[in-house]
Amino acid sequence: MKTIVICSGGLDSVSLAHMVAQEHQLTRLVSFDYGQRHRKELDFAALCAERLGVPHNIIDLRSIGAVLTGSALTDDIDVPDGHYEEDSMRVTVVPNRNAIMLTVAFGFAAAQGDEAVATAVHGGDHFIYPDCRPAFTESFEKMQKFALDGYANVALHTPFVHQSKADIVTAGARYNTPFDLTWSCYKGGAQQCGRCGTCVERREAFHLAGVTDPTSYADPDFWTAALARQAGV
Amino acid sequence: MKTIVICSGGLDSVSLAHMVAQEHQLTRLVSFDYGQRHRKELDFAALCAERLGVPHNIIDLRSIGAVLTGSALTDDIDVPDGHYEEDSMRVTVVPNRNAIMLTVAFGFAAAQGDEAVATAVHGGDHFIYPDCRPAFTESFEKMQKFALDGYANVALHTPFVHQSKADIVTAGARYNTPFDLTWSCYKGGAQQCGRCGTCVERREAFHLAGVTDPTSYADPDFWTAALARQAGV
Repeated sequence: MKTIVICSGGLDSVSLAHMVAQEHQLTRLVSFDYGQRHRKELDFAALCAERLGVPHNIIDLRSIGAVLTGSALTDDIDVPDGHYEEDSMRVTVVPNRNAIMLTVAFGFAAAQGDEAVATAVHGGDHFIYPDCRPAFTESFEKMQKFALDGYANVALHTPFVHQSKADIVTAGARYNTPFDLTWSCYKGGAQQCGRCGTCVERREAFHLAGVTDPTSYADPDFWTAALARQAGV
Repeated sequence: MKTIVICSGGLDSVSLAHMVAQEHQLTRLVSFDYGQRHRKELDFAALCAERLGVPHNIIDLRSIGAVLTGSALTDDIDVPDGHYEEDSMRVTVVPNRNAIMLTVAFGFAAAQGDEAVATAVHGGDHFIYPDCRPAFTESFEKMQKFALDGYANVALHTPFVHQSKADIVTAGARYNTPFDLTWSCYKGGAQQCGRCGTCVERREAFHLAGVTDPTSYADPDFWTAALARQAGV
């Protein structure tokens, strides 16, 4: 099945790209530039496309990002440190972001003759992001059947929607994903910080999966200390 | 109910804006620039916003239009003359255009605290555009409930979805829409051509509604001659 993968350059979507390349017919990676403060992760999506031998299309949504205000990903609000918590991470929510990216990807798939769009939404994001939940993705796929009726038939693949981020690490390892060539950090340093919500979540996922994390972090001890505190050491 | 109207500057959406301004609380008009060949209709959307005393936001989707190839609205394919026919008008279909515009409008509404998005999709477009049919709009509204769950509650208003374009002319007249300040023509002349599919459809709608068409057309006789042929004169 000819499949587009929506790839941010993060651990989840790069793992997905490697999985689709082996299990289906990967046609291209699509990334979105919605004016996120740090575009570094897009370089890792480009590297992934090169590695897998497919085109990489970056679709410019900056004019849309500009109107979707109130988000730390696009505005000058500080990104909170530490573990994801509902209140502190609400500022990272861009309203309707997944729905917008998916409708654009489906239009692109229809224009290109692709048969599926794959996205790496996963269970770990459910409690904070409504547009990562199965109720949303199932409803979205139904809506698209009606929107493209008679013109194209494009499926939505969400292999991780009922899984945890640790499960993604396990799957990524199985498909030989080079994890050190993926970017999760919300901050824009030379190395991933090791302290922000996504860095902590990433380290925890490797820990729970029992997979060695090859990533070099600016503050490698932040997570280790958190783990020690948790163990009561 | 605080309502955004998606307004292209055409007869349908300008009539809708006048209706919403009187029946609800119109907060703004939103137009989309997706790289359509003639942006003249956007000027009529701007005039409408000025007349109704609300902001007009033009959202730049040109980078998306560029990837949704194969359409006469964005590419250099000739626009067919004459009445809408399924085959000849297929070239004007931009895949997933309504779904994309609606998801962006819903994100914008959520960010602005608006409670509804209104769109002028109507029954006359059903046979050719799947994303103008009730099955699509109902499914879309459900999908949005899941996508924004816990963050915003935005309704989709489609007052014309079960109506004909002639019904829109009737409604537009009731709400004192200045029809001469609306643009339908797919070609880019100083006046509307009177010959293309949308011009013919527009003239037919006034005829069927029994409302005088105040519009000045470059070829006013094209429709009159068609009508005479139809009557066997």
